Amino acid sequence: MNVRTGYERYYEAYGRKTEALYQAMRDAIVSGLAQEGMRLPSSRAVAAEYGLSRGAVNQAYDMLYADGYVRTEAGSGTFVAYRPAGARVPGMKERKESDSASIRLSAWGERLQAFGYAAQSSEEPRPRIDFETNVHARELFPEAEWKKAMYAEVRGAGGKQDTLPGEGYYPLREAIAVQLRRERGIWADASRIVLTNGSMQAIGLLAMLLLTPGDAAVIENPTYAGIVRAVQAAGGALLPARVDREGIVPEEWEARLLFVTPTRHFPTGAVLSSERRGALLAWASRQGAVIIEDDYDSTFRWSGRPNEPLKALDREDRVVYVGTFSRTMLGEQRIGYALLPELLVEPFRRAKMLFEPSSSAPEAQRALAAFIASGAYDRHIRRIRRVSGRRLHRLRREASKRLSRWFAFVDTDAGLHLFAYWIGLPEDYDRLREACGMKGIRWADGSRFWVEHMLSGAPEWENVERPVSGRQGSDTRCALFGFAHLSEELIVEGVAGIEAAAISLFGDGRE
Amino acid sequence: MNVRTGYERYYEAYGRKTEALYQAMRDAIVSGLAQEGMRLPSSRAVAAEYGLSRGAVNQAYDMLYADGYVRTEAGSGTFVAYRPAGARVPGMKERKESDSASIRLSAWGERLQAFGYAAQSSEEPRPRIDFETNVHARELFPEAEWKKAMYAEVRGAGGKQDTLPGEGYYPLREAIAVQLRRERGIWADASRIVLTNGSMQAIGLLAMLLLTPGDAAVIENPTYAGIVRAVQAAGGALLPARVDREGIVPEEWEARLLFVTPTRHFPTGAVLSSERRGALLAWASRQGAVIIEDDYDSTFRWSGRPNEPLKALDREDRVVYVGTFSRTMLGEQRIGYALLPELLVEPFRRAKMLFEPSSSAPEAQRALAAFIASGAYDRHIRRIRRVSGRRLHRLRREASKRLSRWFAFVDTDAGLHLFAYWIGLPEDYDRLREACGMKGIRWADGSRFWVEHMLSGAPEWENVERPVSGRQGSDTRCALFGFAHLSEELIVEGVAGIEAAAISLFGDGRE
Repeated sequence: MNVRTGYERYYEAYGRKTEALYQAMRDAIVSGLAQEGMRLPSSRAVAAEYGLSRGAVNQAYDMLYADGYVRTEAGSGTFVAYRPAGARVPGMKERKESDSASIRLSAWGERLQAFGYAAQSSEEPRPRIDFETNVHARELFPEAEWKKAMYAEVRGAGGKQDTLPGEGYYPLREAIAVQLRRERGIWADASRIVLTNGSMQAIGLLAMLLLTPGDAAVIENPTYAGIVRAVQAAGGALLPARVDREGIVPEEWEARLLFVTPTRHFPTGAVLSSERRGALLAWASRQGAVIIEDDYDSTFRWSGRPNEPLKALDREDRVVYVGTFSRTMLGEQRIGYALLPELLVEPFRRAKMLFEPSSSAPEAQRALAAFIASGAYDRHIRRIRRVSGRRLHRLRREASKRLSRWFAFVDTDAGLHLFAYWIGLPEDYDRLREACGMKGIRWADGSRFWVEHMLSGAPEWENVERPVSGRQGSDTRCALFGFAHLSEELIVEGVAGIEAAAISLFGDGRE
Repeated sequence: MNVRTGYERYYEAYGRKTEALYQAMRDAIVSGLAQEGMRLPSSRAVAAEYGLSRGAVNQAYDMLYADGYVRTEAGSGTFVAYRPAGARVPGMKERKESDSASIRLSAWGERLQAFGYAAQSSEEPRPRIDFETNVHARELFPEAEWKKAMYAEVRGAGGKQDTLPGEGYYPLREAIAVQLRRERGIWADASRIVLTNGSMQAIGLLAMLLLTPGDAAVIENPTYAGIVRAVQAAGGALLPARVDREGIVPEEWEARLLFVTPTRHFPTGAVLSSERRGALLAWASRQGAVIIEDDYDSTFRWSGRPNEPLKALDREDRVVYVGTFSRTMLGEQRIGYALLPELLVEPFRRAKMLFEPSSSAPEAQRALAAFIASGAYDRHIRRIRRVSGRRLHRLRREASKRLSRWFAFVDTDAGLHLFAYWIGLPEDYDRLREACGMKGIRWADGSRFWVEHMLSGAPEWENVERPVSGRQGSDTRCALFGFAHLSEELIVEGVAGIEAAAISLFGDGRE
């Protein structure tokens, strides 16, 4: 039973000797080359011939045995125990790179390839003071209470034979409805809420449900990359809208879909003015459009004045309100939801169930419902509001005192990051960022949120008008200073460090 | 502050007094009708005027207070504390049914509406002996060991700031690769495996990735409804293929995508012959097609003879192997996966990450990896194989002895249900099913797995050739006898009960 050729090819392709031997022998048996009843060479002989250890050969034989290809007879050896039922299987061919090169992606699949994805978590060490966004204040999270809720669900899980339906655990949908009525003034009903795996699943499914390839979709510019991806994958034509310090600037767009972050524009933090809220709703009414309101961090407002979500003002039932627990719960929990217009409830439910007839993460959904019902969630929110409010206050004060010669901060009383345009030359921004990096201080760069930046090189580029956003247009530099996870001491130290680096690079400008 | 009109509309629309009052007052404040500083009427007065309890009125006032719309002054009452920033919000209009009737779904969204979804779990009491499929042998699951693994993950969760990437937890992907190499003879590598929320997410995403609207996709007939939905939603044209006792009948289809269940056809249980396996691969090579191999219950084979998965014979890297843990783990866990051709790994990863940049159910993914690593999973599988093998054996024996005058059973040595065609008139099948139902005995009806049955009334109907499947074509009746969860005693009792009902309806046929 000589399988050297097969062995060498498998070994070359995959690099593991035992598996290469197993695979080559299996091929020989399955293809009928090694016939039923044939005695396999001893493991010692094979080990010598192929330069393997005897243990490795025995392991390959064990795998063949487990699969039923061979049998052993005490004292007399190992024998082929398999007869191919008829057709000869094609033998191992040379692996040609072109073999599967003919796999053709759908139009949707091709569009998906057009934009980049950030590489997985980089190997760089995290700087000591990292004004990162999307990081949680771990020490403020009531871990013990949350774990208690999860333990209870894990313990009780055995009693639950049935899966959770695709639209999610009803008591959690109800808890969200109560929260929206109480906190956001939205008349929400649980029957119109569908749970999703993070808000991105809601955004992705809505883009698919509402955009036929070629349809225009208005997006804010700058914006969250996930929204751009969702529109592009669905084949929508991007209509980037200008954003100024009062949020998105309404126009008479020819479109039937708008994605917007009115409570606090992402990433600049601009709060959409009341006039513009009314204008967007009136536009949607004229166009027969749907507005998707992404209320990604409305939980974090520090002063009393409420901002009406568009959904609360939505008299024609044209607004989808998308929310998430990703910013208030620990990072690993990805529970989001969509509150839908009546006409979209069933289409959205079907879209979700096409991919997930049953909900994933059932324990987390149940635990979150219990966590909210126990009052622990509200206590947690009040606590992080208080602490984060102090941190934001401190950051604003320090930044305006020390960094306003170089950065123009967009004032905010909400959210978990402070946004700033760079005042000087782009090269200087890059030099400062590098100098700070060497001191162990970093902030999140904002330029990647401009649509032009996301699409550079992508075929949809020509759809994009060049907007005049911010102070100097889109080739300005800008920064996000996330503070949720930083103590006031670290905030003070970080800002001072940036100031010192800037002074040593550019002088103190006080002469 | 008279808000009666608004109140009545809200109450009529939603049926809850407190919330209607809250909403109507909020409208009045936000629209500027009730101006800043205005004193609200006493709760006693409002309660009398609107016929509410004082508690209900106070609750509405509390909600307004929590939202910052009103303030209270000790001893002097409640005052409007909010001034609209500018634009007047449109008042509450009559809710017209037609308001959002202009929401237009995408072509994808419209296609989604074309097929039905089973209603949520019915209210009918479960029969005492239910030969249901998709039910687990709860008593055989090592619940304590699984919960121990989950507890450990919940306990450790606090230490994990980072989310799991969209492609899933690497050690679980590796554990699956080892399993596929050992159990299925597939040369699997973790880097080619992407975890999904159940196998349906994999099937749905693959259909989207590989079908541009109008592209043909070959499906088995009968088949699992999820596959039909996935093809239809992607806009694919269905090419239903005939299935006989050796599985799908190969033809020279003009298509570049095939969904197939070669290990054990769903639902008939036919095992695809070796000749046909070779023929399908050769067809795919000629057409440049991709084959999606849904190996939904390969774990459950009771005799030693191995069936090569197509993926193990796939020399051109054209087969996607889709697997799931839904049938071996408790019902609530929805962890599936796709082992992908090299060229599809990145497109599939992007498709997954469009909707889920981070994995949902991270605890379950980690716990499952630990559960497998500890050996508990393998022990569990060996145990259910042993027990289920005995149950299948008993069911086959009883059924062939007692029911073969009415049912033609498709013999099988694998899986968790026995499939049978009804031999007599369709009306008689329906009568027997009803008679058994009254005795507390039920089996799963098989006719819904025919494509014609799924599509009746759907616009894609014309794409479907009428196949000649089974013994009497698709208007025959057929049955699935699931046995995973039934003791041998109940199996015997159930079969005897069906026999008795049949004899009392149709005579014993022994004269």
